[in-house]
Amino acid sequence: MENPLWRSTPEGEKEIARIEAFSDGVFSIAITLLVLDIHVPTTDQADATGLLSQLLHLWPNMLAFVASFFFILVMWINHHRLFTLIRRSDNNLLLLNGLLLFGVILVPFPTALAAEYLQHRDEATAVMFYTGWFFVIAIFFNLLWRYAAHNNRLLTEKTDRQLAAALTRQFSFGSPLYLAALLVGLFSPLLSIVLSIALAVFFALPSKAIQRLTESGAKQ
Amino acid sequence: MENPLWRSTPEGEKEIARIEAFSDGVFSIAITLLVLDIHVPTTDQADATGLLSQLLHLWPNMLAFVASFFFILVMWINHHRLFTLIRRSDNNLLLLNGLLLFGVILVPFPTALAAEYLQHRDEATAVMFYTGWFFVIAIFFNLLWRYAAHNNRLLTEKTDRQLAAALTRQFSFGSPLYLAALLVGLFSPLLSIVLSIALAVFFALPSKAIQRLTESGAKQ
Amino acid sequence: MENPLWRSTPEGEKEIARIEAFSDGVFSIAITLLVLDIHVPTTDQADATGLLSQLLHLWPNMLAFVASFFFILVMWINHHRLFTLIRRSDNNLLLLNGLLLFGVILVPFPTALAAEYLQHRDEATAVMFYTGWFFVIAIFFNLLWRYAAHNNRLLTEKTDRQLAAALTRQFSFGSPLYLAALLVGLFSPLLSIVLSIALAVFFALPSKAIQRLTESGAKQ
Amino acid sequence: MENPLWRSTPEGEKEIARIEAFSDGVFSIAITLLVLDIHVPTTDQADATGLLSQLLHLWPNMLAFVASFFFILVMWINHHRLFTLIRRSDNNLLLLNGLLLFGVILVPFPTALAAEYLQHRDEATAVMFYTGWFFVIAIFFNLLWRYAAHNNRLLTEKTDRQLAAALTRQFSFGSPLYLAALLVGLFSPLLSIVLSIALAVFFALPSKAIQRLTESGAKQ
Repeated sequence: MENPLWRSTPEGEKEIARIEAFSDGVFSIAITLLVLDIHVPTTDQADATGLLSQLLHLWPNMLAFVASFFFILVMWINHHRLFTLIRRSDNNLLLLNGLLLFGVILVPFPTALAAEYLQHRDEATAVMFYTGWFFVIAIFFNLLWRYAAHNNRLLTEKTDRQLAAALTRQFSFGSPLYLAALLVGLFSPLLSIVLSIALAVFFALPSKAIQRLTESGAKQ
Repeated sequence: MENPLWRSTPEGEKEIARIEAFSDGVFSIAITLLVLDIHVPTTDQADATGLLSQLLHLWPNMLAFVASFFFILVMWINHHRLFTLIRRSDNNLLLLNGLLLFGVILVPFPTALAAEYLQHRDEATAVMFYTGWFFVIAIFFNLLWRYAAHNNRLLTEKTDRQLAAALTRQFSFGSPLYLAALLVGLFSPLLSIVLSIALAVFFALPSKAIQRLTESGAKQ
Repeated sequence: MENPLWRSTPEGEKEIARIEAFSDGVFSIAITLLVLDIHVPTTDQADATGLLSQLLHLWPNMLAFVASFFFILVMWINHHRLFTLIRRSDNNLLLLNGLLLFGVILVPFPTALAAEYLQHRDEATAVMFYTGWFFVIAIFFNLLWRYAAHNNRLLTEKTDRQLAAALTRQFSFGSPLYLAALLVGLFSPLLSIVLSIALAVFFALPSKAIQRLTESGAKQ
Repeated sequence: MENPLWRSTPEGEKEIARIEAFSDGVFSIAITLLVLDIHVPTTDQADATGLLSQLLHLWPNMLAFVASFFFILVMWINHHRLFTLIRRSDNNLLLLNGLLLFGVILVPFPTALAAEYLQHRDEATAVMFYTGWFFVIAIFFNLLWRYAAHNNRLLTEKTDRQLAAALTRQFSFGSPLYLAALLVGLFSPLLSIVLSIALAVFFALPSKAIQRLTESGAKQ
């Protein structure tokens, strides 16, 4: 039998709070490090063509920056949504969360790769590596959620099973959609990146399930 | 009808707390990464002219660092003031806050640009890009506040409407003032940066509205 | 006599909370900075051999990244476990925790060293420096725990002595095991790194002592 | 009249908590970024002299890293001590705290400078700039504390005036001692850095005043 007053156990809340704090740290640093790959044009380059023209040539870097920024932001938003439903931690949750953070921390590398190789002979390889990494992270995210949600293992008592099932359905779209973006990269690397921005917007928009979640949070 | 005890709802407070934690992370990382663009002079350069002379030549980097530091600091102070008034979150708030963070995260890039190109042929372009980015962030900040404050949508019950209206007025000066700093860059890039430091000081000084806010916070 | 209500003393909890916040910050930044040492191949390199081949040549960087990521993650998990048992701080704890953070902050340097020198003439030196640093950090970690646990000095009242002794035993394996990984580096640098990944997994898996800790945390 | 229940005002505590969170973020990032200035020797250098010899040549970088690490750590410890005494914030506190953070954020630059120029013709200039910056930060720290402590302006009710006066005395040693370290740099740059490490240890050791503070915190 669960203690109906679990919400006031300091230990469970403290544990979840520290996982969130560490994860928030990693998300916020990974998203901020993205800027380090946008390099200022050298004055030699600017002397040759003018600075404005050099800045316009940075569009692949800006595009990759925007796509990765919104990917990490939306990943954080959904991580944050999940953890409003998770009430306690166990060792596997720590490791699965660690796997997700592993994915997020690496994002600056494929981002720099896509930025460097867009408009280059190898752009398909670079962009498929890039969207492919989003696909992998989407899988890690599903593993985390499904582990926590399986038989309401780690969820709060107030979480109804229908809501959890609806979220499972919504998140399960993530991997195939990013796989589709990856395959599009075979034909049009640029479109593949634009698609991944669109996917971030899609996962930011609350589904009905998320809306119910938000509303039930507000009502409580 | 609102529950008069909303202040004790753990969900609403936890949600706002995690947005603040993520935002604080981003603000503090973006402000700290600014130092990475102040490069130590090479020993070859120092051998030619002496180290002190090389250090003095770093003044554009220091000036841009100071301006961006205080811009981000004051943006953080005001973000922090706003969130003392906001009591709950919704999906749009998360996205508008994400847009503001997008602006803040990019600040190191125009900062490095201004530092590199001050005293160079292209300084007007670089500095207008720099203060122009502050202008864009000021717009994002206004969007965030106006969304939250519209009809007291997400504000705490204790926030009186006069105070909210006074803050709306104060913040609405931000965008035109940074636009003015941007236009000054056409004639004097240096003055444009100095103006943007002055603007940061101006927005750090509490207006009467802010003072009332601080006092009401202290009295409660 | 201890106040049986110590759990509600705001000062003790606030102090521990701030140490955890600072440590979480350092852990999450150190782990995220690891990505900065995975450099995108230059387009010149890719033009010569194809991008995919260049990416495959990054395997020493990826291996070192993975080993250091899991080392820091598991160090954080165990740090987090300890601090669920520590209820108050003193000056020595602050300094010993500082020593541990000193170790963690430096990790990106030996990681970059191992990545650069794997498959190079000096790989044994580089890898022994790398796993040697893990050995040093394991010592720092033991110092921290033993100081806090000695006579239950800083532990919570609920921590039973058997549990503390079991943890002391488990953690005391850390230093000799990392020393073994270090010595293996004399013969096979690659195996030494693989061993250090295996050790991270080992310390992530909860021993019986840890399991009891987790369960007692869940039951409370 | 002060409300005797001020400890339970959520607004005051939340405000201080967010200043601490932002400051903790900045301290932990600045301290972690220090590692970025320890560069792995190139394989060309190692081929010429052996890797071990190259690593030993990094001692100025390690020394500067150690000195700056402990400076920031001890600055954080003392910041943390102060904020256990500060119960509410005002606009000036935010700005003075911002000034202190400005000092801390810049530390990686003089650290890299000292590391690069130790054993070089310009070492006195570089090291005086380095310890000089510690001197400036010590002034900022005193400004912050004196502002908060003046007439117990922002302190908690439990803080007795004798304790506050003792802390004021202890902290007031900071600026002249760092000034002395700075002047020693004129004759022996190396000794100047070693002195600044000794000063960090000195300010980490609790004075009687600090001990009373810690004890009173533990007893409450």
